[in-house]
Amino acid sequence: MSQLAPVRVGLLGLGTVGGGTINVLRRNAAEITRRAGRAIAIRCATARSIDKPRRADLGGIKLLKDPFAIVNSPDIDVVVELIGGIEPARALVLQAIANGKHVVTANKALIALHGNEIFAAAHAAGVIVAFEAAVAGGIPIIKTMREALAGNTIEWLAGIINGTCNYILTAMSTAGREFGDVLKEAQALGYAEADPSFDIEGIDAAHKLTILASIAFGIPLQFPRVLVEGITQVSREDVRYAAQLGYHIKLLGIARRTPDGIELRVHPTLIPEQRLIANVNGVMNAVLVRGDAAGPMLLYGAGAGSEPTASAVVADLVDVARVLTSDPENRVPHLAFQPDALTDVPILEPGAIETGYYLRMHALDKPGVLAEVTRILAEQQISIEAISQREPLADEDVVPVIIITQRIREAAMNAAIARIEALPSVSGPVTRLRLEHLE
Amino acid sequence: MSQLAPVRVGLLGLGTVGGGTINVLRRNAAEITRRAGRAIAIRCATARSIDKPRRADLGGIKLLKDPFAIVNSPDIDVVVELIGGIEPARALVLQAIANGKHVVTANKALIALHGNEIFAAAHAAGVIVAFEAAVAGGIPIIKTMREALAGNTIEWLAGIINGTCNYILTAMSTAGREFGDVLKEAQALGYAEADPSFDIEGIDAAHKLTILASIAFGIPLQFPRVLVEGITQVSREDVRYAAQLGYHIKLLGIARRTPDGIELRVHPTLIPEQRLIANVNGVMNAVLVRGDAAGPMLLYGAGAGSEPTASAVVADLVDVARVLTSDPENRVPHLAFQPDALTDVPILEPGAIETGYYLRMHALDKPGVLAEVTRILAEQQISIEAISQREPLADEDVVPVIIITQRIREAAMNAAIARIEALPSVSGPVTRLRLEHLE
Repeated sequence: MSQLAPVRVGLLGLGTVGGGTINVLRRNAAEITRRAGRAIAIRCATARSIDKPRRADLGGIKLLKDPFAIVNSPDIDVVVELIGGIEPARALVLQAIANGKHVVTANKALIALHGNEIFAAAHAAGVIVAFEAAVAGGIPIIKTMREALAGNTIEWLAGIINGTCNYILTAMSTAGREFGDVLKEAQALGYAEADPSFDIEGIDAAHKLTILASIAFGIPLQFPRVLVEGITQVSREDVRYAAQLGYHIKLLGIARRTPDGIELRVHPTLIPEQRLIANVNGVMNAVLVRGDAAGPMLLYGAGAGSEPTASAVVADLVDVARVLTSDPENRVPHLAFQPDALTDVPILEPGAIETGYYLRMHALDKPGVLAEVTRILAEQQISIEAISQREPLADEDVVPVIIITQRIREAAMNAAIARIEALPSVSGPVTRLRLEHLE
Repeated sequence: MSQLAPVRVGLLGLGTVGGGTINVLRRNAAEITRRAGRAIAIRCATARSIDKPRRADLGGIKLLKDPFAIVNSPDIDVVVELIGGIEPARALVLQAIANGKHVVTANKALIALHGNEIFAAAHAAGVIVAFEAAVAGGIPIIKTMREALAGNTIEWLAGIINGTCNYILTAMSTAGREFGDVLKEAQALGYAEADPSFDIEGIDAAHKLTILASIAFGIPLQFPRVLVEGITQVSREDVRYAAQLGYHIKLLGIARRTPDGIELRVHPTLIPEQRLIANVNGVMNAVLVRGDAAGPMLLYGAGAGSEPTASAVVADLVDVARVLTSDPENRVPHLAFQPDALTDVPILEPGAIETGYYLRMHALDKPGVLAEVTRILAEQQISIEAISQREPLADEDVVPVIIITQRIREAAMNAAIARIEALPSVSGPVTRLRLEHLE
């Protein structure tokens, strides 16, 4: 076996993923060395409280209180940043880069919000910032899009990239339960945070989508341009009606290339039940990406958790170890495309997005309202794919009417919905969910 | 944009994949250069008949009759071998290596049967032989196992890696049709060869499994040790009975690490219908791989065809372009593990394989035979998971009996089947299919 020197790693953060990284590197040390041709050794680690008992065996790892002592240490080749959040993670990563160290991070918010700055600094310093663990945990979607699809023009991607939301939507679908009820259970099981808004409002998925879209299309990271809707407004009724019509509801992050620009959106989405991605359940993640040459490709796996995320961190460490001595010009670019080859293809405004729709409205006077609603849709050039009336709700004199439409610009749909809601024969607001066939 | 010199490619073979490679490189030239930082230029190509009209635009590509002129040309950096078959592909690849050229190939038979020799030669010469396109077309399963799962001990993998068989089994399942009938249709559609035995007997899948297992476990390529059963014995009845019990039948290539050695097997397999991989239909491929850290991971996509396979060829070309100037010691090893770190973990004999079973037998005297059969299974320590009797076949006085068993060593099952077939109350042979839960 080649006797290359071990890669000396400094670990920032000893939480779930930090502990998993230590455990995986220790348990699979022989297997990793057989692959990489050298050992990967965590030399020191830092955590807010260094005396706390931990699940990982810290033997041989020097514990430090000050994370800057690690990024400034001359005895460290690679810094693994698993602190999360923006500061001090950003300052630490930039300092590590300034010191000529490579960085591996699982920090999706940091990359989505400050990646342009970080990658520019890394490029100038000739170091690598690897971030496979930042999107979809153990699933190698960054590597696949950056390397395996290098010969393709990416047409679109759609991903289930938030396990908390998928757990909640799956339970609502399979057990017919209410959102709030399932959310409480998810919190008890540790699948949702005490403050779950980051997940259920779609922010976390939007961070990941920002990263995926940049790599897919060669555009700068631009989180503020993502249309974001979470799952808090998805009702048990809509899940059930969708299922009756042959659709499952999933929170998808979607990035799509159109002649006018790029769609970037996170929202609950009806998907035909026969699609594989419609059957990705519980906390599992999946990303469907369509290349013009490869066609559709789906990657499915654990999107979070201690060891699945650690698996991605270790893969990045091995990748970094392999190119420690290589010419920076020949490395895989951070955002898939050469830094001077990023384009400024515009991100579409929400009104310009095209998608299918599921509409639910409550009709007071059924025969009349159907004629009026279908006339409004026709006038907005919206084609109806299916229309169905449901049983009246108990104790009410309104009849739920469900309409599935073909693809249409969101602006036209918004105009149609405003007109429908103004009809005297329609009671209350129109519920609107987007729908994608993903073909 | 960096102005690195173009990578000069010589293409052997202008068939389906060769034409696709030319088309993809031409259509996505700008996108590929934006990613790779340099152009990838096919300088010359060879085909058996160089005057034949082709679907690809050959402008700028010098056509040669003699493939050895390409592998010996000083103006070529990388040879792409898309001839298929063993000779002259093997001689050409070895000659290219001897000349210090990198090689990209889609030739699964060549790698499965002569990979050990080829990779040893490449290692000695300091060149790369890349073969992502050899397994599952556009799906990056080689890259995923070699790089993305580098931190994992791989526990097992199971793949739908032959599109012809999956097309046939899907049509038998969804349309209730007979094997021979669907095979003829597949031949008419170009999904099966005029001589389909290579596909339907499982040989092609076994070539691919040989490669995947080597990369998963760090073992030499050993095609002759694969247990291979094709799909020619799968009947319409078994597909229907399996579906009634909640299973789909797929041809799987399975490699599994056990305490006693490694299982390597290709055979029709019952899979619970709720598994994603059980719902991979038509000519699509999928590989499910379980790492000890990452957990289960599924990759799904087009397993064959002109442009999906070309997508993998081009990705390999970009990878090779990136490491043209790198230290060979730091490259990703051909078989994932360093050449001197391959192990000789034994491959299990067929009798030592453990799996669940689906048994179908025809009972002449139902009450009596069930008691006898269950006693034989109990004596062989075989646990029954489900037993069900079907309607007698028309015009016959035999009753089909279906038994699903739990995992058991194949030797014990073979002994039980021999005893069951000897029962006077059982008519004809027992049909035996293997069953995997893939959890």
